[in-house]
Amino acid sequence: MPELRKDPITQRWVIISTDRAKRPSDFSTSRVEIRGNGICPFCYGNESKTPPEIIAYGGNGRAPNTPGWNVRVVPNKFPALGIEGSLDRQGVGLFDRMNGIGAHEVIIETPDHQSTLATLPHDRFEQVLWAYRDRMNDLKNDHRFRYILVFKNHGEAAGASIEHTHSQLIALAIVPKQVSEEEENARRYFSQKERCIFCDIVRQECAEGSRLVAENEHCVALAPYAPRFPFETWVLPKQHGSAFENEPAAVVSSLADMMRNMLRRLDSVLDHPPYNYVLHTSPVGEERNDHYHWHIEMMPTLTKVAGFEWGTGFYINPTPPEESARFLREAES
Amino acid sequence: MPELRKDPITQRWVIISTDRAKRPSDFSTSRVEIRGNGICPFCYGNESKTPPEIIAYGGNGRAPNTPGWNVRVVPNKFPALGIEGSLDRQGVGLFDRMNGIGAHEVIIETPDHQSTLATLPHDRFEQVLWAYRDRMNDLKNDHRFRYILVFKNHGEAAGASIEHTHSQLIALAIVPKQVSEEEENARRYFSQKERCIFCDIVRQECAEGSRLVAENEHCVALAPYAPRFPFETWVLPKQHGSAFENEPAAVVSSLADMMRNMLRRLDSVLDHPPYNYVLHTSPVGEERNDHYHWHIEMMPTLTKVAGFEWGTGFYINPTPPEESARFLREAES
Repeated sequence: MPELRKDPITQRWVIISTDRAKRPSDFSTSRVEIRGNGICPFCYGNESKTPPEIIAYGGNGRAPNTPGWNVRVVPNKFPALGIEGSLDRQGVGLFDRMNGIGAHEVIIETPDHQSTLATLPHDRFEQVLWAYRDRMNDLKNDHRFRYILVFKNHGEAAGASIEHTHSQLIALAIVPKQVSEEEENARRYFSQKERCIFCDIVRQECAEGSRLVAENEHCVALAPYAPRFPFETWVLPKQHGSAFENEPAAVVSSLADMMRNMLRRLDSVLDHPPYNYVLHTSPVGEERNDHYHWHIEMMPTLTKVAGFEWGTGFYINPTPPEESARFLREAES
Repeated sequence: MPELRKDPITQRWVIISTDRAKRPSDFSTSRVEIRGNGICPFCYGNESKTPPEIIAYGGNGRAPNTPGWNVRVVPNKFPALGIEGSLDRQGVGLFDRMNGIGAHEVIIETPDHQSTLATLPHDRFEQVLWAYRDRMNDLKNDHRFRYILVFKNHGEAAGASIEHTHSQLIALAIVPKQVSEEEENARRYFSQKERCIFCDIVRQECAEGSRLVAENEHCVALAPYAPRFPFETWVLPKQHGSAFENEPAAVVSSLADMMRNMLRRLDSVLDHPPYNYVLHTSPVGEERNDHYHWHIEMMPTLTKVAGFEWGTGFYINPTPPEESARFLREAES
């Protein structure tokens, strides 16, 4: 008998197939291969092929837009949103529109075309997280922005159009629906219980254990109770933290360790799958609160989202999270 | 400057790229080809390879599960939900679960393996819609069900695992989030204005014209103001109707004509793209109301949904609906 499970944070139901649960080898996903053909705008020597850099780490005394960097952040050459102008909110008959104002940046995680994020050494991984943090804190000075989302598409099947490993950041003039739903539900829970729902989940999962993948000093990785996707994995801080970008260095270091560990386990269990991850933090201006708990959602691209999902907003997941957690727990990291 | 637009029904924002709008030839979508390899469980003579049929049309005097039918409805051999048992709602610590009770059926739209829904003659298309309707009305007698969703995945990239043209139906014990959001927002609009929001949209779009694709006696096809996907197209009845399954024969006939017309235009403009469509009707037991208006949402599979969409719940659409409507308006049907 399949099971319907409800995610307590988003209130989203998912169908979990329990009878014929899919194991890692049942997915016909395409292994992400780095081909290295052609000229790559994210490699050393091609710095002029991107818009001028915003920040870069590494290469003491190096001139901007020259080789020698470890992590480099540039505006997206084909941005989804434009940085210049005012919002100009308008009604158009029944409808509402505004100018597509926002920042769209690319975090080039390493100059090495052959690396993936999972194969970076710990300290270089940590630098990527510091780049996220620095850019988030800088963009908050722009008062047009209400939310800053960091995300990563790895592999063509997961939407990456350039194979050289990179993350993206989008600053938005609105709080996106997905986040505001999480935030509203977390606020409602807090107003009833005076506890953070994420903290409660972390406590329950650590005690119960069947969906727990790994723990380190400050972070925990778990398969959520009602995941949309097979092998979906969340990384959260163990102590309540409402905004990633305000965490102390020790937590960032723990997070780098845990994310790297999870990406390596996913590579090992699923043979280098395409994946997405997103960083959910509190909206701009609401960074200090007791109800919302920042976290990373990692989603390997194993299934196709089709008519049923588009029509309902709920998901059919062929791998129970207890199974995916077990595979990931037993994997090499 | 890109534009942010808000869908008035779901309150979902989308980013519409207006500068470098993608034209049909800019999408590297894979044309759906019918290969016809191997033994197909949906072809004549293989009726025993599916679970026993629930209903079939055509073939007067034919024995069940033998050739001669025009449309055949069978239980899904690998159902996402189980039909037997009780819901057994439970709490598991913080979490909520219930048994995955539901019906999951397949509507085989034609015995002809080489046909697509778009190439069926009008009267055969109409029979497919009658099969939807009959199954919906029958499943409503099962008091465990609160929503019945009909959807179609066409082509492998759109999630179809069998190439022989077919639709699917899922009966659910809960109203899916997507529908309940539409329904709640439509109810709120009605309580403010005493008008159906969908009726208002149809009126405005017919008068304004830039997103209108086609009209016939009872139906209209349009590109919504804030579509998630390029070339997303909605078909709606012009007169208020809250439940598809209660419409009179004239409307069903008009709908068959309009859907067929749209699928042929999509084939012509986008060279036989993979696509999904979903039928949104009122929840079971709330069929007669003034605020919700049934409709079909058609979505060709042209773009990849990636980290940004999963993280935000909003969408980047590279083709303004005014452009897609113009292409579809000018296409052969």
